[in-house]
Amino acid sequence: MIEPKILKGFRDSLPTQEIVRQTLIAKVQQIFRSFGFVPIDTPALEYTEVLLGKGGGETDKQMFRFNDNGGRDVALRFDLTVPLARYVAANQSSLTFPFKRYHISKVWRGEKPQKGRYREFLQCDFDIIGADNAASDFEILLLIHTCLSTMKVGSFKVLVSHRGVLNRFLELQGIDSKSSEILRAIDKLAKIGTDGVTKILLEEGLNEENINNLLSFINLPKDSFEQTLGILKDMLGSDNEEIRRLDEILCLIKSVGIESDFVLDTSITRGLDYYTGIVYETLLSDMPSIGSICSGGRYNNLAGLYTRDNLPGVGSCIGLDRLIAALEETKSNIVTNQSYADVMILSGLEQQKIAMALRKEGLKVDVYIGNKGAGAQYAYAQANGVPYVITSVDENGLFTVKEIATRAVLNGISASDLVKLVNDRS
Amino acid sequence: MIEPKILKGFRDSLPTQEIVRQTLIAKVQQIFRSFGFVPIDTPALEYTEVLLGKGGGETDKQMFRFNDNGGRDVALRFDLTVPLARYVAANQSSLTFPFKRYHISKVWRGEKPQKGRYREFLQCDFDIIGADNAASDFEILLLIHTCLSTMKVGSFKVLVSHRGVLNRFLELQGIDSKSSEILRAIDKLAKIGTDGVTKILLEEGLNEENINNLLSFINLPKDSFEQTLGILKDMLGSDNEEIRRLDEILCLIKSVGIESDFVLDTSITRGLDYYTGIVYETLLSDMPSIGSICSGGRYNNLAGLYTRDNLPGVGSCIGLDRLIAALEETKSNIVTNQSYADVMILSGLEQQKIAMALRKEGLKVDVYIGNKGAGAQYAYAQANGVPYVITSVDENGLFTVKEIATRAVLNGISASDLVKLVNDRS
Repeated sequence: MIEPKILKGFRDSLPTQEIVRQTLIAKVQQIFRSFGFVPIDTPALEYTEVLLGKGGGETDKQMFRFNDNGGRDVALRFDLTVPLARYVAANQSSLTFPFKRYHISKVWRGEKPQKGRYREFLQCDFDIIGADNAASDFEILLLIHTCLSTMKVGSFKVLVSHRGVLNRFLELQGIDSKSSEILRAIDKLAKIGTDGVTKILLEEGLNEENINNLLSFINLPKDSFEQTLGILKDMLGSDNEEIRRLDEILCLIKSVGIESDFVLDTSITRGLDYYTGIVYETLLSDMPSIGSICSGGRYNNLAGLYTRDNLPGVGSCIGLDRLIAALEETKSNIVTNQSYADVMILSGLEQQKIAMALRKEGLKVDVYIGNKGAGAQYAYAQANGVPYVITSVDENGLFTVKEIATRAVLNGISASDLVKLVNDRS
Repeated sequence: MIEPKILKGFRDSLPTQEIVRQTLIAKVQQIFRSFGFVPIDTPALEYTEVLLGKGGGETDKQMFRFNDNGGRDVALRFDLTVPLARYVAANQSSLTFPFKRYHISKVWRGEKPQKGRYREFLQCDFDIIGADNAASDFEILLLIHTCLSTMKVGSFKVLVSHRGVLNRFLELQGIDSKSSEILRAIDKLAKIGTDGVTKILLEEGLNEENINNLLSFINLPKDSFEQTLGILKDMLGSDNEEIRRLDEILCLIKSVGIESDFVLDTSITRGLDYYTGIVYETLLSDMPSIGSICSGGRYNNLAGLYTRDNLPGVGSCIGLDRLIAALEETKSNIVTNQSYADVMILSGLEQQKIAMALRKEGLKVDVYIGNKGAGAQYAYAQANGVPYVITSVDENGLFTVKEIATRAVLNGISASDLVKLVNDRS
């Protein structure tokens, strides 16, 4: 006997969990496609050199890396951004730019497993490659807004900033030589608070005045995007590309009437070095503790490691696991109304013949194929969350149906009655 | 600069390929769910010991196997059947039996890459665990039939046999001690012909009379399932479980009126040792060279390596790549009518505002966000297979639309006109 154990940090997905996940994936895919974004796929396994790039550091240590049977140094991808860069460089002549793609797939990281952190997880990225303008920045923001609105996770805010705005401020303060350290510190603000950030910045050699100015800068009033942008204009002037870009983006956001869901928040930096333009996070108003569900930004030389062509990009990813947690919290019917099937047919009847007719009406129909009695069959339906069981059929083809939740027996039910019963539930 | 190369035997999927693949996956998922089958997921990486079982041999050599950073002997899964066995044993108390699951995911095999064989490929399995009866055998056959009918791949035959029938025949001939070798040889019949099979069997020590009898047995007349079953009854008697099972299955097939698509074909053995009951393959009548699109069978002790409980199973898998090849051959609109979007909106218009309204009508709408002129924008639409481009909007909100294929210009087009134009294409 072999113990059927799985590796630490890896998960089996039970049917009810997987149904929710697949339902959500189908919904976001539909939204992506409705924006003309297209799916791609890349290998799970790549040359380590390709994945690592100039890399090293943390990423290197976290990779599942090995020599394959042919002696090649290979590794499992740890994100979908590096493979996208490699993909765009390799397939450049087959793609049309601006290239709008999404990619929903697994990635692997050998991190220390902890609550909510796994060594294998699903990544859901969407990016536009080959455009550096407000229209593409805005399209990603609109896509985020559309995803969150469609999912009905309650009210939310998309927090937007621009790397260049912060950099310009640091220049004015004469502390731009420390910009990497500063933006990494600010990125931790929500986690470690003002005192924590202050402590780090003192250690980095900033003086108290610098720090106080910086803290005021990242805590500007946020009553409206427009108001905050006005303050920024006063501080940094209007005649620079960052402010112009933010102005254009605001104008596009207003053109579709969704400006109240956007906040210009100069504390948003997204720690990573590769962002060069706008950066953003999203927060659910009623569940801030879940963290950002969609984050991302603009990076202006995506595939620079693999091609001489300059390919600017802007993109984001949805944290599907966080989104599921949020949907559970709101008792969304995406998570609560999931069942194995809509109807089960008791054994002894002409099961598949009845089932075929009902499937034509769009119902999901399970037939009980075990050898147990009626009691066990109801228990099977209940365990699988199947709301209705057909127990008999009369000479006119009408069903007797048992509603599992109430044990109520309904007589003379037609196929269309059943469709109505099922639809009324969801 | 790093060369953006990928590993031999691995593939990038371009958008048009991936759209077809995702469309097909969505269709089969919908069919599986309509049968009450539910999705599961398992880790890509597992303990080698768990994946290998008693294994060794070919499988062992083909695995991507390595020691992870914690020194564990791990490997990428090479199929979805072993993980299913492990999963069912590990999660037995959370599952309800009979358990009907599907699993569509990647598997990895370090085989020598050759035409149509890859080291990473998508597997699509569906199985019923925990029932050994004709109802479950039939449900898998019906599911296969439903998938192939829905996909419109033209006429097809599901070729069915039963391992026990062949074994019983070998016993009668006194050659059952060689059954493994014989069934592996017969499994190659389509590839190497009668002469090839005869040669192997001579080498295995069978005499010419045995071989001739065997060849007649696997070449019984196949005018109808019922007729072939009648011949088998005459040869092997009716009072045995194999014939009874085939009788029951035929009865169920006839109950839904699809018996003309099923053939009882005693040459079907499915080389693998683990099948114990019915086995089946499918052939497309107009494209036999594509090979079997759905194959499988019954195995009566799926999880025996991991649990003492006896868990009989029956299942099948769909070769999605072969199915795509078949759909390309039939010029199915699943493959020919795929586009990045239904409509593109030229720059300069209030793009996203128009797009949002059209998306509400169910259209997939791309907006051109590059900085190029009209000519380049039409070229972008054409390269992405987008059939219609909105070039202007009048004061009543009606569009001027260019049809890319014909360059025809349509005036006064409403949103619902556009929906109709798009729907008429597919």
